[in-house]
Amino acid sequence: MKHTLKRYLPCLLVWISSAAFCQTAFKEIKVNQQRIESRIFELAKFGKDSLGRGYRVAYSKGNIAAMEWFMNLMKKAGLELTIDAAGNIIGKRKGKIASLKPIAFGSHIDMVPDGGNYDGCVGSIAALEMIEVLNENKLVTNHPLEVIIFSNEEGGTVGSSMMVAPYGADRLKAVSQSGLTFKEGISAIGGNPDNLQNAIRKNGDLSAFLELHIEQGGILEKENLQIGIVEGIVGIEDWEVAIEGMANHAGTTPMNMRHDALLAAAKLIIAVNEVIMSYEGKQVGTIGKISAAPGAYNVIPGKVILGMEIRDLSSEKIALLFHDIEKRAASIAASSGTNISFSQQFKPIHPALTDKSIQEKIVQSAKTLGYSYKFMQSGAGHDSQDMSMVTPVGMIFVPSVGGISHSPKEFTKAIDMANGANVLLQTILALDKE
Amino acid sequence: MKHTLKRYLPCLLVWISSAAFCQTAFKEIKVNQQRIESRIFELAKFGKDSLGRGYRVAYSKGNIAAMEWFMNLMKKAGLELTIDAAGNIIGKRKGKIASLKPIAFGSHIDMVPDGGNYDGCVGSIAALEMIEVLNENKLVTNHPLEVIIFSNEEGGTVGSSMMVAPYGADRLKAVSQSGLTFKEGISAIGGNPDNLQNAIRKNGDLSAFLELHIEQGGILEKENLQIGIVEGIVGIEDWEVAIEGMANHAGTTPMNMRHDALLAAAKLIIAVNEVIMSYEGKQVGTIGKISAAPGAYNVIPGKVILGMEIRDLSSEKIALLFHDIEKRAASIAASSGTNISFSQQFKPIHPALTDKSIQEKIVQSAKTLGYSYKFMQSGAGHDSQDMSMVTPVGMIFVPSVGGISHSPKEFTKAIDMANGANVLLQTILALDKE
Repeated sequence: MKHTLKRYLPCLLVWISSAAFCQTAFKEIKVNQQRIESRIFELAKFGKDSLGRGYRVAYSKGNIAAMEWFMNLMKKAGLELTIDAAGNIIGKRKGKIASLKPIAFGSHIDMVPDGGNYDGCVGSIAALEMIEVLNENKLVTNHPLEVIIFSNEEGGTVGSSMMVAPYGADRLKAVSQSGLTFKEGISAIGGNPDNLQNAIRKNGDLSAFLELHIEQGGILEKENLQIGIVEGIVGIEDWEVAIEGMANHAGTTPMNMRHDALLAAAKLIIAVNEVIMSYEGKQVGTIGKISAAPGAYNVIPGKVILGMEIRDLSSEKIALLFHDIEKRAASIAASSGTNISFSQQFKPIHPALTDKSIQEKIVQSAKTLGYSYKFMQSGAGHDSQDMSMVTPVGMIFVPSVGGISHSPKEFTKAIDMANGANVLLQTILALDKE
Repeated sequence: MKHTLKRYLPCLLVWISSAAFCQTAFKEIKVNQQRIESRIFELAKFGKDSLGRGYRVAYSKGNIAAMEWFMNLMKKAGLELTIDAAGNIIGKRKGKIASLKPIAFGSHIDMVPDGGNYDGCVGSIAALEMIEVLNENKLVTNHPLEVIIFSNEEGGTVGSSMMVAPYGADRLKAVSQSGLTFKEGISAIGGNPDNLQNAIRKNGDLSAFLELHIEQGGILEKENLQIGIVEGIVGIEDWEVAIEGMANHAGTTPMNMRHDALLAAAKLIIAVNEVIMSYEGKQVGTIGKISAAPGAYNVIPGKVILGMEIRDLSSEKIALLFHDIEKRAASIAASSGTNISFSQQFKPIHPALTDKSIQEKIVQSAKTLGYSYKFMQSGAGHDSQDMSMVTPVGMIFVPSVGGISHSPKEFTKAIDMANGANVLLQTILALDKE
């Protein structure tokens, strides 16, 4: 017995400390909903345009002020703070076992012009909340922890993409939404655009990356669910579509002698919608931009430019949908005497799948906490997409009221933010036990 | 016999001078095609924008330079020159019978940005050609003649409308296409905006007004005809159409949860086309303007603004077409979860009919000259429309190659310009005999 006890005592201690004891203790620790909510309100005060609308575009004054406020809170929470070469804020907390690779989690605090106060902010404030709760409960994880606040997510996950591959000189010279070039912008927020290599995270540098985010769609609310477990982030492909007809006098050109580029464009907009709706699945297709030249009441439009986007979890399906759209366009062009051409814009964003074992841990956490949940895809791009190229990734969604996002009407209830943060906390702790 | 001869001698002389003799002499006089063509080329040199495109917007430097060139030619042709309070150039030639009211004819020499060299210019140069030919043939008409070069036709027949009713202070303060206010512009071209009442032509001040113009459509060319006899100038009504849906994230909003304002707009654009095409007749309807907000690849458009125009010779038919369009819009709004509203823009331009007896004189002139012709409507607005409110009006069309207008590709063959000018000449002489 003695022997036996002696032999098993270390194991027992490990078991007590790391499993039963911790699990009990960890299960009881909860995030502070009121603190999360009030920080959301505080963060919302940073960055306004001249009309009083939210303006916290990356590299803008409002964005920089919000970063300073956030870094101050991180410092107060005892995090060891750095800004990497790409301008991402990184806050480190030591773990018990220094040789383990950090578990990272975070999101972003920049916003689209006239955007909302929850997109990115919920995940950022919840990431900081993880540290606050651990501090309050005097808990130290085995793994080091990293809170990451990515720079310029809304400009195309710029900060996280630079953790995977640095921008070349050409892309750095391009002008960002703020009016500054990316190079100027990265310098303005404390990064070092001349040394982007330093921002790279190699495969194996992190144990995992987790992101809590608002759904930005209306599925969870509609189905009255609390937690979304993200299976993957859709791929995104964009095209500029040019429809060329013949500009002519709107009074003197009989209806049957027109080559109206806008009428052809209208048929194509409907065809795109029909093609997307004709397949089973969650694919989406959008015409978000349109311009017609010359653009006067009394002139038949001669040229129309559309901006078209298709998103799906499968690149093959995107290609199939695009192929169908091209066929419909050729038929519209032929019947309307116009010319329709497509040119791909930006670099296609490939679909990114989240880690199965992290998905299971999120499910387990939601179950333990008694929250309803469903598996879903993310229709929006996220920093997690880039991170999935260098580390296993998990993503947690919480409901968006009315499914509204990228709008001042964007809203997520405090209880839902807290639920999501609690799931994030339990998932981190579950990962930490591995 | 003697008695009889004595009694009829004065009549005989009148008959010889005013009918048979003149008709023979007049029938033989013809315009100088080469002079018309070379003046078209000379006039085209005035007014270029920084990219070398035609820019002779009313009140611009190019417009003023062209006016000076034109007035110099008018002076050389012996016309008594004035600029009226509205900035219209008026060149007078005395007639044999001072008590007769003048026969007026002319057009305009301002152009739309990047426009063509024939719209307005053909009628203006042909009007001057009338004087040249009469001078060369030492012919004096019974009626005084007036060449009128209207100011700012392209800005909404501004000069001719001021012959009917002066602009009020508010409209004078508005900014014209040139960047100057109408008041500043009228001053810049030698008018007197503080005394617009002086530009008014009262009913009965003129015997008639005639305008030669390019068709600006492709009917004459398509049917291989030389002369169009304009029965009337269509009425024009414009609406701004607002389609309000819900802007939302293009990735996270499932297809069946969207209120896509651009998709609804596309359906409306097609519906407008279908309504216009569903009636017999020459009515035209155009959506020439479109904008979609917020206007990004990754956002479902929440609001679309269209510019819609309907033209027809009957105001009742325009009202009927608009009523049908409103009904279609209500059904599209209901099925797409959007709101569609129409607000009329500008002052509706009422249809204007030309004078039947002048139409007959134009037919007779075309027949005498051996030109093929057809009756048609003018789909474009013209200064003749305003003039029809104060005097009988006649309008002559000549073919536009390819039906193209308001474009640098606008073109009318020299022979067609000369044919039109010959018809104009014979019509003036026929009117003069009354």
